[in-house]
Parts: sequence; C-alpha cells; structure tokens
Amino acid sequence: MMNIAIIGVGLIGGSVAMKLKEKKFCDQVFGVDKSDANLTKALQIGFIDQKATLEEALEKCKVIILTAPVDAIITLAPKLLDLVKDQVIIDMGSTKLNILQLISEHPNRGRYVAAHPMAGTEYSGPEAALPNLFKDKMMVYVEAFKSDEDAFELTDSITEQLEMRTSFMTAEEHDTHTAYVSHISHLTSFALALTVLEKEKSQGRIFELAGSGFESTVRLAKSSPDMWTPIFKQNRVNVLEVLEENIKQLQALKDAIQDENYTQLHKLIKKSNKIKRIIK
Amino acid sequence: MMNIAIIGVGLIGGSVAMKLKEKKFCDQVFGVDKSDANLTKALQIGFIDQKATLEEALEKCKVIILTAPVDAIITLAPKLLDLVKDQVIIDMGSTKLNILQLISEHPNRGRYVAAHPMAGTEYSGPEAALPNLFKDKMMVYVEAFKSDEDAFELTDSITEQLEMRTSFMTAEEHDTHTAYVSHISHLTSFALALTVLEKEKSQGRIFELAGSGFESTVRLAKSSPDMWTPIFKQNRVNVLEVLEENIKQLQALKDAIQDENYTQLHKLIKKSNKIKRIIK
Repeated sequence: MMNIAIIGVGLIGGSVAMKLKEKKFCDQVFGVDKSDANLTKALQIGFIDQKATLEEALEKCKVIILTAPVDAIITLAPKLLDLVKDQVIIDMGSTKLNILQLISEHPNRGRYVAAHPMAGTEYSGPEAALPNLFKDKMMVYVEAFKSDEDAFELTDSITEQLEMRTSFMTAEEHDTHTAYVSHISHLTSFALALTVLEKEKSQGRIFELAGSGFESTVRLAKSSPDMWTPIFKQNRVNVLEVLEENIKQLQALKDAIQDENYTQLHKLIKKSNKIKRIIK
Repeated sequence: MMNIAIIGVGLIGGSVAMKLKEKKFCDQVFGVDKSDANLTKALQIGFIDQKATLEEALEKCKVIILTAPVDAIITLAPKLLDLVKDQVIIDMGSTKLNILQLISEHPNRGRYVAAHPMAGTEYSGPEAALPNLFKDKMMVYVEAFKSDEDAFELTDSITEQLEMRTSFMTAEEHDTHTAYVSHISHLTSFALALTVLEKEKSQGRIFELAGSGFESTVRLAKSSPDMWTPIFKQNRVNVLEVLEENIKQLQALKDAIQDENYTQLHKLIKKSNKIKRIIK
C-alpha cells in the first residue's frame, strides 16, 4: 500500500482518485491544486484525504498523477523530475509531443510515464468526477519504452484498477489522432454554439425547437476554456491541419447546395455514412 | 374510430402508427410507400395492417399522414388536395415554406395541416420506428390558422396521443429555426465524418482513440441521404446562411489558433459555453 498524489483535482483527477479509493489500491490520497476552493470541495466529496503542496506530495507519495491542464503540466513536469527519486510521475494530459520533447534528455526521464485516458465529459471541476468514468475506455501509453520498467508496471496496475483497455503510440501518432477524434469535435461544437447563439440575438425563440440531434452535436461546447485553450495551444499544428480539412469539407457541402448539385450532395452524405463502420 | 394512412413507412411514420395503435386511437392503419420491401417490413413489425395505394388510402381513411421525404411530399400534396373531401392531410415534413406556398391558393387548403414533430434518431426505415419517439418533444404547427378547425382539432388530438408539447409558427420562422437547430447539426456531423474518414486513409488506426465526445458529435452522420438531400434542397436559402455563419465561426477559432492569440481563443470558448443556458 502507498500514498498517491493528484495534481489537479478536477474531472480526471477526481475520477482516478475515487476509483483507486474504491478499490483500496492506496492508503492516503493527497490533493494539490492552485485553487484552494477546489481542494476543499475534493475533501468534502472525499476523494482526497489531505490538501498538500507539491513538495509535500513528492515527500509522502509513491505516485504523483498529473491531471492539471496541459500548460500546467508543461511547467510542473521538469520541476518534479528534478526532485524525483524512486517515485513515479504519471502524466494524464491530452497532448504529449511538446512535453515529451521537453523532458527527453532529463536524467530522470525514466520515472515519467505518459498515459492518456481517453475518457471525459463536458463538465469540469471536482463535482464532475465519476468513479466509473474510465471503465472500458482506452488508456494510451505514449513512448512507454522510455519509462523505467517498474514505473511503467506501477502505472499499468493503476490502469487495471480503472478497468481500462490499453494501446501504445508514439507522441506524434498520439497528437495527430487526438486532434482528429477528440480535439476537432470540441472545436466543431464551440463553433456550432457560437453560430446559434449569434442567431438567437436577432431571431429569439430559436432554441424552442432544439431536439436531441442539436444537443448531441453541441454538448461539448459546455467544456471548460481553461482546460481546452492549452490543449489547442500544445497541439496547434495538428489542430490547424484538421480544422482546415473540416472547413474544406463543410465548404464542399455548401458548394453542392449553392450550386444545386444535389447528386453531389447525396454522394457526400452517403460517403459520410461510412462512419457507421466505426461507431455503433 | 377511424382508419389512418401513413404515406412513407419509415422512422417517423412507423413511430406515429405504433403509438396510435398502442393507444387504440384508430381502427386500421394503411401503409403507402414506393418501396414494397418497406411495406412488407412494416406489416411484419405490425404497425400497419394493410398495404395500399394512394387512392385506396384516400378512399378508406379519414386521416392521411405524410411522412415521406420532403420532395415526395411536395409532389404528393397537390394531388391529394385535388382529390380530398372531408379527410385530413397531415404533413409531418421537416421543411414548410415551399410546400405551403405551393398550395396556398388551393381550394382545399383547409384540409391540410402542417405539423412538424421535432423528434428523430440517426436511423431510418421501418425498423427504426419507436412508439415513444415523440414523448415530451415539440410538435410545431405551421400556419395553423389556414387549416379548417375540424382538421386542426383532429391533428391536435393525434399530437395529444403522441404525448407532445406544441408550438405555433409561421413557415418562415419554422424554416429558419430548423436550419439553425436541426439542419446545421446534420451538416456539421457529415463534414466531421468526411474529415476523419479522409484522414484514416493515410493514417490508419485513427478511430482507436474515438471516445464518447467524438461519437456524440458525429452520430448524425449516420443519417439517410435520401431523407436529408431533399431537406437541404427545400430549405436551401436558410441552410446556406447558417452554413456560412458556421464556417465563419470555425474560421474565427482557427484564426485565433493560427495567430497564437490564446486570449481570444479562451474568450470564444467561454462565449460558446453560454449554450449551458439552453441545454441541460
């Protein structure tokens, strides 16, 4: 048994802590967060046992789990690696290339495990945490071969407690793939929300007709700007590529409608239906 | 008690028939469809009692419910109005301005009720029908004042059987509002599916990381091209307007990332969060 520290006590950190406590995988959970209000909430909810500083966390815990926004991880990771001894630092952030390049030559690189749990909701903060958030979802290990074997094994035993499947990728693959199947979905939702909110100003009443289709495509627009702005910053090149492609595809649909080329429009929609192959 | 005809035995028509049968609101349900295979399926599922031609439907039924694609409704409606006596024709299509302009001077206009049930799924065909599809959803009556009082009352009693809420609009309002809260959601999903399917060709493996967020924003891309192409055709002007606005908003997000203006990006995301006001 051992102590665990959660750096960033929000949706992801809280959900990890809840599950590890439920499974009695650890003794005490220490919470570190720049927001004292969030730490107090996390204590009240009960998924942490103590508030701590980063230094206290390193001193008292075997595992340090980074679940802060990715820009905070980029700042914290080198500091933690400077101080680390036999502890394991697990980075659960949504982007990996920049951070792994930054620490690639660090003498303690082996203590760092880059693992991205592909799970979430549109809500954020300690109240959003759910003990079964990760069940049957994918944990992506990035550059796992650069972690010490014991550090990787300990991380993998946590993944097992979270009841997740696993996958291995390079940092480049990871950041490209997440741009296409996670980051872009958030951008299209933000854009859709802005589009309709803009129209409401002149038209009113417009949301009276909003049904489940609209709700489904727009729900990610409730996601936190504090979490997502750093993700787009860290994954800028890939995100710009996918945004450009997405605008091109929207433009192609628009051109078909503009030109009243309904054969072409039908063809594009039918082509998009191939997504049935992927999602049930 | 009376007979009812369903013209177009798919998701919407089947769901209406199932509920009316469950509530014992009608004697027999007659199904009319250009696809004999769909009629056979509808008979097997049991939401229609007989296959029929349009003429038989008019002869034997008090209520004719149009749930075919909107281009088929545009073709059928004037023919039905030429032949109608005291029957009621209920148009449940997703666009209203063109069809209502087309029949506005017809001597039998009063027998026509334009009602759009704001409900659906990404699936189509008789197998997709669900008896509780409409429960607590909105039935939008369009230009209800142009329908005969008895025709409207009979339609409203069906709406009641379907357990729906109601709203009244002009045809212009209806077509603008649906462009913004229904039609555009489908277009953004089609574009997103096309974007990611395109990338898969060169990248492979990309869907391994697809989670619930991606699924939510892309699920409408499973929708039928036969149903949706005519909707975009009939609502072309509004759809082009909203597509243009949506591309503008995506471009604004892209510009902020391109220019590394993360203050602006944060501001846009925060603004889009106002959608919380609308969807729970």
